[in-house]
Amino acid sequence: MQASIHKIQQIKNQQSAEDILADFLDTRKLSLSIAEPLSEADCQLQSMPDASPIKWHLAHTSWFFETFILKKFVHGYTDFSPHFDTLFNSYYNAIGAQYSRPQRGLLSRPSLSEIVSYRKHVEANIEVFLQSETCPVAVLNLMEIGIQHEKQHQELMLTDIQHALFQNPMMPAYSEKLASEQADQTDCGPINWIDFEGGLVNIGADEDSYAFDNERPRHQYFLKPYRLASRTVINAEYLEFLESGAYQQPEHWLADGWAWLQENKIQAPLYWLKREEGWSSFGLAGLKPLNPNQSVCHLNYYEANAYANWAGKRLPTEFEWENAVQKSSDAPNYLNLSILQPQAVNGSGLSQMFGNIWEWTSSGYQAYPGFKPFAGDAGEYNGKFMSGQFVLKGGSCVSPENHIRASYRNFFYPHQSWQYSGIRLAEDLS
Amino acid sequence: MQASIHKIQQIKNQQSAEDILADFLDTRKLSLSIAEPLSEADCQLQSMPDASPIKWHLAHTSWFFETFILKKFVHGYTDFSPHFDTLFNSYYNAIGAQYSRPQRGLLSRPSLSEIVSYRKHVEANIEVFLQSETCPVAVLNLMEIGIQHEKQHQELMLTDIQHALFQNPMMPAYSEKLASEQADQTDCGPINWIDFEGGLVNIGADEDSYAFDNERPRHQYFLKPYRLASRTVINAEYLEFLESGAYQQPEHWLADGWAWLQENKIQAPLYWLKREEGWSSFGLAGLKPLNPNQSVCHLNYYEANAYANWAGKRLPTEFEWENAVQKSSDAPNYLNLSILQPQAVNGSGLSQMFGNIWEWTSSGYQAYPGFKPFAGDAGEYNGKFMSGQFVLKGGSCVSPENHIRASYRNFFYPHQSWQYSGIRLAEDLS
Amino acid sequence: MQASIHKIQQIKNQQSAEDILADFLDTRKLSLSIAEPLSEADCQLQSMPDASPIKWHLAHTSWFFETFILKKFVHGYTDFSPHFDTLFNSYYNAIGAQYSRPQRGLLSRPSLSEIVSYRKHVEANIEVFLQSETCPVAVLNLMEIGIQHEKQHQELMLTDIQHALFQNPMMPAYSEKLASEQADQTDCGPINWIDFEGGLVNIGADEDSYAFDNERPRHQYFLKPYRLASRTVINAEYLEFLESGAYQQPEHWLADGWAWLQENKIQAPLYWLKREEGWSSFGLAGLKPLNPNQSVCHLNYYEANAYANWAGKRLPTEFEWENAVQKSSDAPNYLNLSILQPQAVNGSGLSQMFGNIWEWTSSGYQAYPGFKPFAGDAGEYNGKFMSGQFVLKGGSCVSPENHIRASYRNFFYPHQSWQYSGIRLAEDLS
Amino acid sequence: MQASIHKIQQIKNQQSAEDILADFLDTRKLSLSIAEPLSEADCQLQSMPDASPIKWHLAHTSWFFETFILKKFVHGYTDFSPHFDTLFNSYYNAIGAQYSRPQRGLLSRPSLSEIVSYRKHVEANIEVFLQSETCPVAVLNLMEIGIQHEKQHQELMLTDIQHALFQNPMMPAYSEKLASEQADQTDCGPINWIDFEGGLVNIGADEDSYAFDNERPRHQYFLKPYRLASRTVINAEYLEFLESGAYQQPEHWLADGWAWLQENKIQAPLYWLKREEGWSSFGLAGLKPLNPNQSVCHLNYYEANAYANWAGKRLPTEFEWENAVQKSSDAPNYLNLSILQPQAVNGSGLSQMFGNIWEWTSSGYQAYPGFKPFAGDAGEYNGKFMSGQFVLKGGSCVSPENHIRASYRNFFYPHQSWQYSGIRLAEDLS
Repeated sequence: MQASIHKIQQIKNQQSAEDILADFLDTRKLSLSIAEPLSEADCQLQSMPDASPIKWHLAHTSWFFETFILKKFVHGYTDFSPHFDTLFNSYYNAIGAQYSRPQRGLLSRPSLSEIVSYRKHVEANIEVFLQSETCPVAVLNLMEIGIQHEKQHQELMLTDIQHALFQNPMMPAYSEKLASEQADQTDCGPINWIDFEGGLVNIGADEDSYAFDNERPRHQYFLKPYRLASRTVINAEYLEFLESGAYQQPEHWLADGWAWLQENKIQAPLYWLKREEGWSSFGLAGLKPLNPNQSVCHLNYYEANAYANWAGKRLPTEFEWENAVQKSSDAPNYLNLSILQPQAVNGSGLSQMFGNIWEWTSSGYQAYPGFKPFAGDAGEYNGKFMSGQFVLKGGSCVSPENHIRASYRNFFYPHQSWQYSGIRLAEDLS
Repeated sequence: MQASIHKIQQIKNQQSAEDILADFLDTRKLSLSIAEPLSEADCQLQSMPDASPIKWHLAHTSWFFETFILKKFVHGYTDFSPHFDTLFNSYYNAIGAQYSRPQRGLLSRPSLSEIVSYRKHVEANIEVFLQSETCPVAVLNLMEIGIQHEKQHQELMLTDIQHALFQNPMMPAYSEKLASEQADQTDCGPINWIDFEGGLVNIGADEDSYAFDNERPRHQYFLKPYRLASRTVINAEYLEFLESGAYQQPEHWLADGWAWLQENKIQAPLYWLKREEGWSSFGLAGLKPLNPNQSVCHLNYYEANAYANWAGKRLPTEFEWENAVQKSSDAPNYLNLSILQPQAVNGSGLSQMFGNIWEWTSSGYQAYPGFKPFAGDAGEYNGKFMSGQFVLKGGSCVSPENHIRASYRNFFYPHQSWQYSGIRLAEDLS
Repeated sequence: MQASIHKIQQIKNQQSAEDILADFLDTRKLSLSIAEPLSEADCQLQSMPDASPIKWHLAHTSWFFETFILKKFVHGYTDFSPHFDTLFNSYYNAIGAQYSRPQRGLLSRPSLSEIVSYRKHVEANIEVFLQSETCPVAVLNLMEIGIQHEKQHQELMLTDIQHALFQNPMMPAYSEKLASEQADQTDCGPINWIDFEGGLVNIGADEDSYAFDNERPRHQYFLKPYRLASRTVINAEYLEFLESGAYQQPEHWLADGWAWLQENKIQAPLYWLKREEGWSSFGLAGLKPLNPNQSVCHLNYYEANAYANWAGKRLPTEFEWENAVQKSSDAPNYLNLSILQPQAVNGSGLSQMFGNIWEWTSSGYQAYPGFKPFAGDAGEYNGKFMSGQFVLKGGSCVSPENHIRASYRNFFYPHQSWQYSGIRLAEDLS
Repeated sequence: MQASIHKIQQIKNQQSAEDILADFLDTRKLSLSIAEPLSEADCQLQSMPDASPIKWHLAHTSWFFETFILKKFVHGYTDFSPHFDTLFNSYYNAIGAQYSRPQRGLLSRPSLSEIVSYRKHVEANIEVFLQSETCPVAVLNLMEIGIQHEKQHQELMLTDIQHALFQNPMMPAYSEKLASEQADQTDCGPINWIDFEGGLVNIGADEDSYAFDNERPRHQYFLKPYRLASRTVINAEYLEFLESGAYQQPEHWLADGWAWLQENKIQAPLYWLKREEGWSSFGLAGLKPLNPNQSVCHLNYYEANAYANWAGKRLPTEFEWENAVQKSSDAPNYLNLSILQPQAVNGSGLSQMFGNIWEWTSSGYQAYPGFKPFAGDAGEYNGKFMSGQFVLKGGSCVSPENHIRASYRNFFYPHQSWQYSGIRLAEDLS
């Protein structure tokens, strides 16, 4: 919800309102498809303040279009409900008060069907407006932001429901179909190391493509020579770390990470469970034996950093990652409702950069030199989160298509682990 | 789940299994009637650790019959589900581990319809067993306990859903029908004072009627002469206390009560809201203008005690209350799904003792002399809660019929206010 | 700081101001004697919100005389310091604001020597005033209250410094002299049981002796026949309970007690430590091998109640204890700066009722019928604490002389264990 | 406690052990001078977990020399006390267990005089060892680290005692002499802007001078053209921000900053108090009227960032600051026990870069490319803190002489404000 609107306009002019409308309707449909295997009770769950109920995501993404487009640009538009401005505003102080975030799971009303009606109402109004002659070009830009915003929430819908279902001792799968799938048997072989010479490189999004404000402006950054691992760290490798006693050894950990381990009595990654028959991990397919070749995921920054220390390597910076990604060639593993888990690879080239798992970088989430948040209400989209978080790159197996790019900067706090986040190792080349 | 089983047997022998079965089926039906106006999403809500979701209540009351009767007495009975023992055990350590209480709202599975099936399964099995020749007399006693237990949960279902719905800024009513009812217009007149001479009186349940273990044994207690108010304190009277600035004046309050006020920034009773047009209160009928003649309720012990201090009176002891109740003659206002709120009275005699609102007493919830908890698993029903709580007497407008009696001892912590709990004043007669 | 002043006056008239003054000066001297083995740094320590620094106790007990006597009755008296009213008011809201209780350890100024000067200043002024002709009789009563109040703080000084010193891994003794004392070798033999017939007995203080308001009015109470153990439970007996696994078995514990155990990971009583060479316990003499014959102490209500359950007995009520104490004949073990620990006894009669350890009763700390808190500022002394606490009887080995009586009611929350509190068992006689 | 020891050796060889010894003794003396105006009770205070008592600082800085030099290099050295390894280890997990940090204020023993004896014992042993022929060169390097370490603690001693004294409603000054000083009357005039062209610049410490590991290796960084304010923001300017309502307006604040404001009900900077006669601020000289020309300090990152947003500027990066500092020419205002507060300046050049106040940068505290923590126990000195903190530059009016340099990187969490930390504004030059 940022991006210099001024610049985008020139691009958008070339794109027809029809294309935008088609994207919009496809995106809206996917959100409902994600909710489809779930009951209304499932859609009500909020298992922690960081997560939201599916119902809330479905409503909030509609509120976004209603608030920033219908209510601002459509003459005579009336709110679907006088209550929704408070209930479904996430964090836009400029718009007004917000319902308490940790209590989103307590909103049994509106019902799921009322929210679906709300969605249809918004869609119908957007459709009419986009096809009208009075629709200004600026709205096309806002539509793009709204679509990208909904894609971000699609990923959260899946990670949030996974966390919620994990609280149930019955360990239910997100869908029965997934639960019955066979495990991926690929053997991914050892890590290969890819060299990069560094130097003065360009970082960030250029002006003629869609991007968020935090990816701009494109600027120069000086890099020393470095190497990246050809693939991400896999469960078998992380298990070796765990079984070496690393969760009991302070020397691998950041001070904050060690404190986090102690306070929360952490003994293993978030979704790992040890039982008589060995280690299992919980995912959208339910509880499954740990697949040794799958990328380890649901790690937080502390765990990713500790593993890298233990392995005698380090995490890459966001600049190293972005500079390297041009050498990547394999097909990304983005959101596919029939898969919804990381995929193993076998090969020596730079792989798994896009999709699969988000890769923690050692870069604090700060502004790029010359950063300007979007003027207006959307200025709260990204800039106000620039403290205490780290950048992740590349998207994951639950990131929707047509969303991730080389300059895309995701960001989470170092203790957060419910995303599909893992490790790619780096080292200095000297 | 206590009561000297040995004594009950003699009574139960006289009562036919058919009577018990009829009671059982009526009680089970009422639980579903309570859930009937609610959606599955409503039934999923848990708004605080003290409260439970409707779904959980429906399952737990079935688990009680399954665990203490079907699994103990029915040869060859198999569990409805291997998971339910953990999920729906409330606090019986002797039975085994329990799912974390504050997280009951996170169990979207089993679904409401699965829980209804579970209820039917238990009912069918109980029905067959009660009509069989192998059913021992002891089971009739356990049936009575299970029925009374379910009645307790019926009250909690209503108070818990009220608390949950209050978290929603739309302030939804429990049922539309209630929301449209007219307010009670009775003018209840001033309090009259009824004298009691005291002396050595008998307290507690006698041996030939159903009672919980904490009501026994019947014993002698010496009372000084005292007086009780003819009716409970009403909203108009409590509003006067509030508007005199009492919530800002430490002199009326217990030290713990004042600390509770400060820490939680309490300015008014739980469900009271001040808006431009004056004070409203939230109930199962939704948000309504404060009815001046209705008994003030949803007060905690600190508030009840502070009001009594402010009024220059005191709360009665549980012994004074129980000794007085024989002089009461008006019809109780128990659970009626068409009313679900306190009713005003007009008269000079001792009224509103049963039903309407629970009355806080100044008696700590301790064991009666000679108290013996029930032997076996049910020994955890009452005795282990005998610290830090106060006794309430008389039942409320959401207590089911055929449940409350003079010796009935309800108990809550002094900070708890989500029950239909209020004030009857007392004073010394000297 | 309560007691019907009206009644006390008649007594006090008979006692000369000189006697009161002598008591006052002795009491003041003892407070300094208690502080004598400690450094200024020791006197600064506050190890938990429930405890206060020695310096604070020394100042607060002076503030009490200054506030309630010098500032109210002495014409032209000026405050020793304008800051002390806030700093050294404990909980008297009627007097004004209070410095944050948990932060008392942060007041390095005034220094210990300034506080000693403050004490002398107050003492000199009191001395002159008591000897003056203008001193009203009411002041003699307030003097008595102030003296008894200071005695209460003398006990707290010792229990608070013990708790503070225990936080230091060097486990320092309160005084070197105590640390070098030999252990008591008395073998106390088995418990004998003493019968009491009960009936309608008198409880509470009569009108013609000094007592706090919470001990009044004297009233009748009906008791069933019962038995009390001849002595308190000893370490050897409690160790058997502990080593039977009781801290891991929920069946012995109150629900709140079991929750307390789990949340705080309690494995043994407060000052017990298990080391290679066996169990030790920390006291004012430092860390010493557990003395099997000494009364177990520093137990909270949950522990006392659990032990009684495990032993198949129960705790006495405060009424049973007070009725029984007349049969007690052994010499009490009150505060003696050369001992400061429980003493073992050997004998079959009712012993250890006064001194030694406080005995938890199963009686919630509530008002006696007809209770009237003292009118005026001192009304906050006792009455406002009547929720959530339990009554303890008899005083301990750190209670000063001339302070405890049969009707004395001490009170603490069930989770508190830093006092010298232990167990006397009771059972029904039927 | 980092810095490539290998490189340092070559330097140190040129410096005589006598010079090091002289530095050591001067530094040790200054620590005692800082404690000199304080009583033992003052030295005992710990007002929050982030701060430590003066006594603890005095002991810990001695433990450092004892642990890393005397116990490792001096044959036959015996510990001063077997307890000090636990008591005075700050956070070196490799050395062993540590006494609980938030409880350091509970160690009344050892006494202040014992700690002074410990200091003398360590100093005497170091003195003998440094003058011995067996002292290896590596020890000279460790001495330098130990000296710089003690200087860091000297700054903390002053900021920690300031925070502790502020908890006392009497608002005592650190020393009477300071309290009686006149306020600085300099009028500092408006901010001037200094331009920097940027480009590929060198950042970090070179190999031939003393530096911590986190300042290394020296590396290239690409900077866009930028401008820095000639001086830091002053109280008068910050007051304007405050009085414009900024503490009630979310639009200026980072999301975490706004949450911090709300949760802690922050209305003004840490040491600011509003009273009838206007704003005052608390410092080592006690409570004084706010000096409009003095640099605003004791701000946290959230406040510094919000002010910069409000002013339409931004904070500098650590790279911009370090590149600019070469243009600075005014004399630094470092620790002077007769001043201990920021000094106003009047001039148009780049001033106040060194000393006065620490300047928050917008740079997250991360590793420089090629960073290597010191091998061995000292590896815990800096690297393990690289998450969640921001870099501050330049030292303050309580930083000792011979300690700060252009490459020095201090780091604190964004919510921390008890250091002498403030704001220098920056902006893009385009």
